[in-house]
Parts: sequence; C-alpha cells; structure tokens
Amino acid sequence: MLNFQYFMPTRLVFGPDTLDQLGDTPYLPRGKKAMIVIGESGAMIKQGYLSRVQGLLAKQEVQTIVFDKIAPNPESDDVDEAAKICRETGVDFLVGLGGGSTIDSAKAIALMAANPGTYWDYMQSGSGGGKMPERDALPLVAIPTTAGTGTEADPWAVITRSDSAEKIGWGNDSTFPALSIVDPVLTISVPPRQTAYTGMDAFFHATEAYLATCRQPASDMLALEAVHLIAHTLPEAVANPENLEARTVMAWASTAAGLCESYSSCISHHSLEHALSAFHPDLPHGAGLVLISKAYFGFLAARGEERLGDLALAMGDTLEENLEEEVSGVAFLDALDKLITETGLADEKLSDYGVTREEIPFLAENALTTMGALFDITPVSMGIEDVIAIYEAAYE
Amino acid sequence: MLNFQYFMPTRLVFGPDTLDQLGDTPYLPRGKKAMIVIGESGAMIKQGYLSRVQGLLAKQEVQTIVFDKIAPNPESDDVDEAAKICRETGVDFLVGLGGGSTIDSAKAIALMAANPGTYWDYMQSGSGGGKMPERDALPLVAIPTTAGTGTEADPWAVITRSDSAEKIGWGNDSTFPALSIVDPVLTISVPPRQTAYTGMDAFFHATEAYLATCRQPASDMLALEAVHLIAHTLPEAVANPENLEARTVMAWASTAAGLCESYSSCISHHSLEHALSAFHPDLPHGAGLVLISKAYFGFLAARGEERLGDLALAMGDTLEENLEEEVSGVAFLDALDKLITETGLADEKLSDYGVTREEIPFLAENALTTMGALFDITPVSMGIEDVIAIYEAAYE
Ligand SMILES: [Fe+2]
Ligand SMILES: [Fe+2]
Repeated sequence: MLNFQYFMPTRLVFGPDTLDQLGDTPYLPRGKKAMIVIGESGAMIKQGYLSRVQGLLAKQEVQTIVFDKIAPNPESDDVDEAAKICRETGVDFLVGLGGGSTIDSAKAIALMAANPGTYWDYMQSGSGGGKMPERDALPLVAIPTTAGTGTEADPWAVITRSDSAEKIGWGNDSTFPALSIVDPVLTISVPPRQTAYTGMDAFFHATEAYLATCRQPASDMLALEAVHLIAHTLPEAVANPENLEARTVMAWASTAAGLCESYSSCISHHSLEHALSAFHPDLPHGAGLVLISKAYFGFLAARGEERLGDLALAMGDTLEENLEEEVSGVAFLDALDKLITETGLADEKLSDYGVTREEIPFLAENALTTMGALFDITPVSMGIEDVIAIYEAAYE
Repeated sequence: MLNFQYFMPTRLVFGPDTLDQLGDTPYLPRGKKAMIVIGESGAMIKQGYLSRVQGLLAKQEVQTIVFDKIAPNPESDDVDEAAKICRETGVDFLVGLGGGSTIDSAKAIALMAANPGTYWDYMQSGSGGGKMPERDALPLVAIPTTAGTGTEADPWAVITRSDSAEKIGWGNDSTFPALSIVDPVLTISVPPRQTAYTGMDAFFHATEAYLATCRQPASDMLALEAVHLIAHTLPEAVANPENLEARTVMAWASTAAGLCESYSSCISHHSLEHALSAFHPDLPHGAGLVLISKAYFGFLAARGEERLGDLALAMGDTLEENLEEEVSGVAFLDALDKLITETGLADEKLSDYGVTREEIPFLAENALTTMGALFDITPVSMGIEDVIAIYEAAYE
C-alpha cells in the first residue's frame, strides 16, 4: 500500500527576472557576511552576474567574499579550503552562483564551514570516513545559471575526492538550499552544446526518478511533466539559445526533475556515469549519461521494465497516436534515440573522452563501490557482470 | 511568463500504520513536554487514538497534557485559553490529533503560546487587530484522523471569533506543521456522512486551487490528481467505510489537495462557505461547500471559465470517451452533480441548517469582509450583487 515521505523545505522562487528579488526578499538567510561560490572559468564575472548578485546583496547590507576555484568536476580539497576561509572570516551564509558543480560545492562548503575535519571524513561510501556531521550546514542561497542539475531543489552535492577517482553524492536535511532563485534569463548565455548536456541531465533525473523503487505519486507527476517538457522543448533551446520561452520551460523542467531527486531518487544509471567522469574529469556529466543511456535503458527494457512505456507516452507527440499502439520499453528507446539526435548529441563517442575498453572492469567496480546505494532502488537487479556488459554495449 | 513561489516545508509521512513511527521518528520537534489538542466530542478517547499517541510520545520521553475543548467550528477564546496553559506549563510543542478543526486550533494555539495578546489581535481582516506576530509559532505535529481539510500540508488555520460570526483563515511560515503523519487507518472510523463532507472539502480545495489565478504547475498537477482520485474513490469510501484501499487513496488525495493550498490557494467559493458556517456553526464546512457549489461553479461556467473543462476531463471515466466531445464548464457541472449524488449528498438543503433567504445580504457582506482576499485570486470578478445572486441560486 502507498507509503512515502514527502519533504523539500527549500523556498523556490521561479520566473524570468526573479533574480532582482534577491535585493529585497525577506527570505534571505540571517547574517551580514556571505561567501559567493563561482566556477573557475570566469563566466560569472564576464557575464556580469557576480557583480549583479553583489549589488543586490549590498542592498540587503550583506558583504560578500568570493571563492572562484570550482572546477567542472569539483574536488574535495577546494571544499576544505573554502570552508576554512568561511570559518576564519565569520561567513554567515553561502551563495552558490552558476552550474551544478558550483552550487554543489557551495553545499559542501556550507557543511564544512560548520563542522570540523575534512569533507571526505563525512562521506559514507568508498574511502569516506563515515563520520556524521554534528552541526547543520550554514544556510545556502542557490542561483542556478544552467538548466539541468536540479541541485536548487534537492540536498545533494556531488564532489570528487582530490587526487583520486571517487565521485560521491552526499547530502542531509541541512544541505537543502534555504532559498533558490531560478531565473531562466540567466540561462540564455549557455552555449548550445552545454544546453544539450545539462538538459539531458535533467531528462535522466526525471526518467530515473520515475523508475526508482522509492518513487511516490508526487515524483511520478513531476517526472512525467519534466520528461514531456524536455522532449518537446530541449531541441528548440539548443537550436535557438535566445528563445526565453524555451529557456523558461527548460528551467521549470529542470527544477521539477530536481524535485524528483528529493521526493524520489536517481538510479544506477547515475552510478555508472559518476564512475566515468570520475576517471575522465573532462567528460561532462550530461554527456556521460547520454553516452551510456541507450545501453543502460536497453538493459532495463530487455528485462521488461513496463514503466518505460509511460515515459515513452510522455515523450510522444500526440496522445491519440500513442493510444493506437502498445507502448513498451522499445518505444522509449526509440524516443530517446530521437531526442539525442535532435539535441545534436548523436555523434559523440566514449572514446572521444579518452575512455578505453580496458578500463571497463575498473569503472564497473568504481560504480558499485562509490554509488552502490542507487543499485538498491533500481527496479532491475544488476551485478558487476551486468554493469560491465552495459559499459561494453555503450562502447561499441 | 511562468512565475511562482514553491514552498511547503512540512515533513509529510504517509501510509497505513505510519502512526507507529511517532514512537521512534528522529523528526519529532525538540522538547520533553507537548500539548495534545483534541476535539470536544470525545471520539479520540473512545477510539483509543489519544492513549496510543501518548504511549508513542512516552517512548520518546515526551510528557503530554491534553486540551479537549475544540468544537467543530473552533473559537478564538478556546485558542487563547489553551495558549495560556502552554505558556504557564512550559509546553515545547503541540500535537494536533483529529479533524481539521483540531489541527487548525493547534496551529493557532502554537502561535499564541509564543506571542502576547489574544489570537484575534493578529487577524488581518474583519474586526481583527492587524498585528504581526513577533515570534514563530511553537512547532506542531499534525495527525489527521479525517481525509479532507488538507491542513496537514498547509499553514492555514480557520478560527471563528467567539461571540461573533467572523470565521477567518490565517497562517504564516511558522504554522506549517513541522511533521505530519497521515495514516489512512485512522480514517476508517469516520462515518459515511462525515466521510462525504470531508472528502468533498478536499475536492473543492483541489478544484479551486486549479482555478485560482495564483496557480503554478505543481499545484495544477496535484489538483488534477486529487480531483481524479476523489471523483473515482469517494463514493466507494462512503459506501464501504472499511475499505482501506479507498481510505488510502482518499488520504493521499486530501493531502495532495492540501499541498494545493500551499502552492496555490482556495478561491471565493470558500469565502462564501465560511460566511455560512460562521452564522450557522452546525453546518459542516464540507456540506456548506457542496450546498453552494452548483450555483458558484455555474456562475464561473456561465462566464466561460475554460479550465473547468480540464477538471471535467479529470473526473471522467475514460479518456477516449472524453476526447470525442468538447469538454466545457457544463461538463464539469454535470460531473459535479453526479459526484454529489454518488456521495449521498443530493438531498441536502441550506434551509435544513437554518439558513434563511432574508440573511443572504448579510452573508454576502460577511464573505467579502472577512475573506475578501480570495476574491482577488478568483478567475472571474464578482461584486456583492453577484455573491447575493449565487446564494439566491443555491437557496432555490
Ligand atoms: Fe545528474
Ligand atoms: Fe475547506
């Protein structure tokens, strides 16, 4: 019988030009000193987003310091360094401005600004120390500038251990952002390729949350909505980056998929990808997901996962058309293939990113060790041989 | 362009037998002393729910005192009296156990346990004092034993001023329950008539939230889900009260409709009902809503409110059947009529509850004065003449 927990305490403010509300919202965390976390690429400075956020915070009499060393696959040493600065300078709250890596890092920094030791002491799998934090993370304001990770609507941070290939997701109730401002105008500047990668990341969050055994009615609804919207809008957002309507739809779809991460969960598709981009930090997360997706969901379809048919229906063009034929996992694989083509990602290969066939057993081992928990909520059971077979199929 | 705020910080635990989790949940509010608020009818004692809750709290080393004076239409004097006891005895948190009136009262008591003056000082309309509370309400655990009000998933408390006919809804961020345990097993004992009343209350929360101009995508989804489930399940829950599957569906539908109250809002249909049951405290809230519903939604349908067609579709039996005809507001009125008949409420009349035609102008005045804000988010504008006309039509 229906049984679940529903919890997502973040206040989400959504809509074009909502960033301006940062200057007068009564919902800013308490305190007069904030650390703004941005990526190392300099994009937030070039586009003027950093100075805009600083100006809006200044209207609320909040002083800011900036930590700008976050790499696309963020590392634990940077988290520890930034947290030390927070402790030394008396930072009251964090602001994560940028893509998923930046906001995830801000969550991890917020945790370590309030707790002793190093970030990896608190990881619960792989080489993590298994410690439980005694204190809540500092409050966090999340301001995403891409549409994809959904980190604005979930507690999860994905960080790689420095000098290793361990990429682990972690979060607790205190790492939900206190306030997330999702302003689709900020995503206009994301180039087409990155739009496709991040949009497909959101697509798989929704897809996986719909299949996860820990799903609930609210995540089912949000997942089908996100899958429907992404299938029908992402190609347009890639083709015409300045289409604000498409950007707005994608921002909501991505946030809805993020909500799915809170009410349900990703499944082992994400474990397999984390292993890939942990070994190959230049592989964008969304690209890695796409590259293994046909093999991964083909594995589920071959084992009769019926809910793939619902996802195919949500991706379809007309309901009447779909009602005439039986909708199965194969229909989902066809629709997925079409979406990958329409977003311009059909030509990518794992070998483009330096992945070799020889390392596949190590990838499989890593996926099961560092993100093993997601296998428990995957609707089809898979052992290491299955994981190897999926990587092999994806490599061909 | 899409623009909204999404916020509902309550932790909802849902499912048959989840009440047992009260004995070991780590999410109980801090503190060792709680006040349990129950209704004056004695039902919570007779059914053993009170002693069960006390036993579970004792396992968590929480002592309890009981406040048992809550009437079906709860009054502000009782709120003030209970809050005084909380202050004098050092209560740490509240537990609302029962129907909507009980949990709403517990919210109001939680507020006044932490703030000076009387509850009515803080009401923002009618004869309310217009004060803003300086402190957050004490934390609240909500344990609903009916499926209808949705108060477990929203911040709202509806209280009537003692010795008057002013019934006002109020809430702020601190009156969201900290923890809500929605255990459908507890609703098995609700008699058929009350099942119908409370179920129809949930139906209208969802219906109105779908029509409110402050709606958002998440409330739209939850509203259509709730409307669909209630139309297809409430008659069975009324006919066979011990059907746990039907009770579970109704509990989720009611909670989903409660979420709609947080993400969207009721519209003026609720204002009109509050005026009725403020003047006639024996009129159950759900019965009042049903009695004016055909006139009220007929008014909206006559003015071309197109979204009523979506609600009719959600209430329909088969999608294919509905695709063949145009679905309009009239289809919704037909479906509503059918649902009212199937839940056994077709024979009720306003005059059964002592409502007279002569008082209609006073009712209209009261609806606009005490709950005027809901008219601002109603999709069709209505003046006092329109409100009078709706009451008149409902009276015939
Ligand atoms: Fe992801
Ligand atoms: Fe209601």
